[in-house]
This record gives sequence, structure tokens and C-alpha cells, in this order.
Amino acid sequence: MARIAVIIDNGFEDSEYTQPAEAFAEAGHELVHVGLTAGSTVHGKKSATPVAIDVAPADTDAGRYDALLIPGGYSPDHLRADPAAVSFAKAFMDAGKPVFSICHGPQMLITADKLRGRTVTGYRSIVQDIKNAGAAFVDQEVVEDGNLITSRDPGDLPAFIEASLKKLQSAQAP
Amino acid sequence: MARIAVIIDNGFEDSEYTQPAEAFAEAGHELVHVGLTAGSTVHGKKSATPVAIDVAPADTDAGRYDALLIPGGYSPDHLRADPAAVSFAKAFMDAGKPVFSICHGPQMLITADKLRGRTVTGYRSIVQDIKNAGAAFVDQEVVEDGNLITSRDPGDLPAFIEASLKKLQSAQAP
Repeated sequence: MARIAVIIDNGFEDSEYTQPAEAFAEAGHELVHVGLTAGSTVHGKKSATPVAIDVAPADTDAGRYDALLIPGGYSPDHLRADPAAVSFAKAFMDAGKPVFSICHGPQMLITADKLRGRTVTGYRSIVQDIKNAGAAFVDQEVVEDGNLITSRDPGDLPAFIEASLKKLQSAQAP
Repeated sequence: MARIAVIIDNGFEDSEYTQPAEAFAEAGHELVHVGLTAGSTVHGKKSATPVAIDVAPADTDAGRYDALLIPGGYSPDHLRADPAAVSFAKAFMDAGKPVFSICHGPQMLITADKLRGRTVTGYRSIVQDIKNAGAAFVDQEVVEDGNLITSRDPGDLPAFIEASLKKLQSAQAP
């Protein structure tokens, strides 16, 4: 089973955390919540879903995890202003580990400069940012490009979760 | 005196609207609030400052205004997903009319593809987006490049307001 880091801050899109988290846990995967302040609790923007932060990105290492989940909403905008959070996300891309990014999630990967030459989707407000970052933008519910799985918004969650679970399974295959 | 359009939506950074708006009104300028739904009231993200929307961007024309103010916060992220709002902002840039953009404000101008070759500043989370959009990013409290005045965050408001008032004065000079 995989150990999945969730990088998250206040203002996340609730369902983009709760639904993948529930599906990953049901499949037997372990979730570790990485955020700006260890021991704090962050909240979603719609339903105020509470999430307890286990560890700050500066105090852990991408090498300890098998995959990364980046929920959307305003959370990625906050996290991308923190160099340690950006380095943490960048390390998963550099290692070719599975990265699941939905909605505003690609903002983290833009600041990490890891979208150049990749094919991705994302929330409609950041389409120009994605293109300017050197990626090919595709307007579909889920885009899989190597280690990277991206979706646009909460309506894409079933496809996003299905693709992510499949990727975890193939990454764990002997 | 100038007629200034303020393009604004929910989640704006309160002080980035209230302080310039107060200074512009005190100097005798007129403010018109342009937002996604005419007749609605939008609110700031910190103090829930209410702002009544006068007109939707599709129902007005940049030609009716002398300048544009783009407050930051989450407001520009919402507005840039609306093609009419983006076209409205683009028209000010195309006409060389004064544009005052603070914090996340440049996101509107990125989607309008109007930052190419310009020198600007903006909130620290969007630095990479600004650079990827073809602009030179400068980390200072206010940057003036032709018609475009930009600042980083609420701490820059005094410099932002001073530069904006000066620009309005020179644009109105006979």
C-alpha cells in the first residue's frame, strides 16, 4: 500500500480533499497531511472541513512518500508562496513519483517550474498560467501524462480518483 | 475629474479596495463598480466589506471610463474565468488608459495576455505566473510602466495610491 502526502492549506476545495482521501484510505493507502504549520488545523473554503497538519514540508522529505495529492481551491495559492512547500512538490516531479493535481493544484507545479513540456488540465481560471508555463492544456475531465494526473474541478472527481487509484496500483506493482 | 472602473468580485482583499477607493473619491474622482452580476453585493475576504456591483462587464464599455482599478485577494481569480471581464480589462490596456493593479490583480492581465514585455510587480505567490507571461518582475512597493501601476500587497498601499493619484492627475492634464 502507498504512503501518500497531501499538501494542503486553508481554503482548499473541500470535496477535492475529502473524496480522494476517502477513496485512498478505503483502498488501504496511508495519508500524511503536509502543511505550513505542523499541529495546526486548516479548513476547507465551502464546508470548513477540518484537516490536521501532521508535518511541515521543511521537516519531512518527499523520499518518505510514494505519491502526492494537491487539492485545489485557494490552498495552492497559499502554499506556492512557501519555498519549502514548492520544493517538496518539485521533488515528487523530479523523482517521477505519482502526482495527483486537481483544480488550482497545478499552481504549485508552475512555481516549481515542472510543467514545461507536460500535458495537463486544470481549473479554467488558470488556463493561461498553465500554457505560459510551457505545458499543453487539454480541456477534459482527467489527463494522464506519465507520473502526473490532473483534473479541472469537483465535477471531474470520479475520473480523477479512478485514474489516481489505478496509477497507485501500477506504481506499487512488483 | 476621472471616472474610474473598479473590477471586483467576492474575496477581494478589503483594504486593497477600501483605501484606494477612499483616496480616489476624496480627490473628486468617480467610481463605478463592475462585477459579474449587476445589482449584486460582493464581499471582501477579511472584513466582509460590502461592495454593490453597478454593472456587468458585458453591459458596459471601457470607453466610458478613464482608468481601471483591480484590487487583489481572490477576486481576480474569479474574474479571470469570465471572458467579458477579461475583455473589459484588456480594453484599458489596449487603449493605454491608466490601470492600477495590486496583489493578485495582474492575474487578470495575464489572462488578457497584456503583460508581455511590461515591467510589473505583484503578490509573491504569482511571481512565476508574471514571469511566464513575458513580463519583467520587480520586487518593489510600486512599479510604474507607462499606463500600468502595480504593487505587491496591502503594505504597499500608500505608495500604490500616491502613484495612482499622480497618474490620474497627469492623464487628466489639459
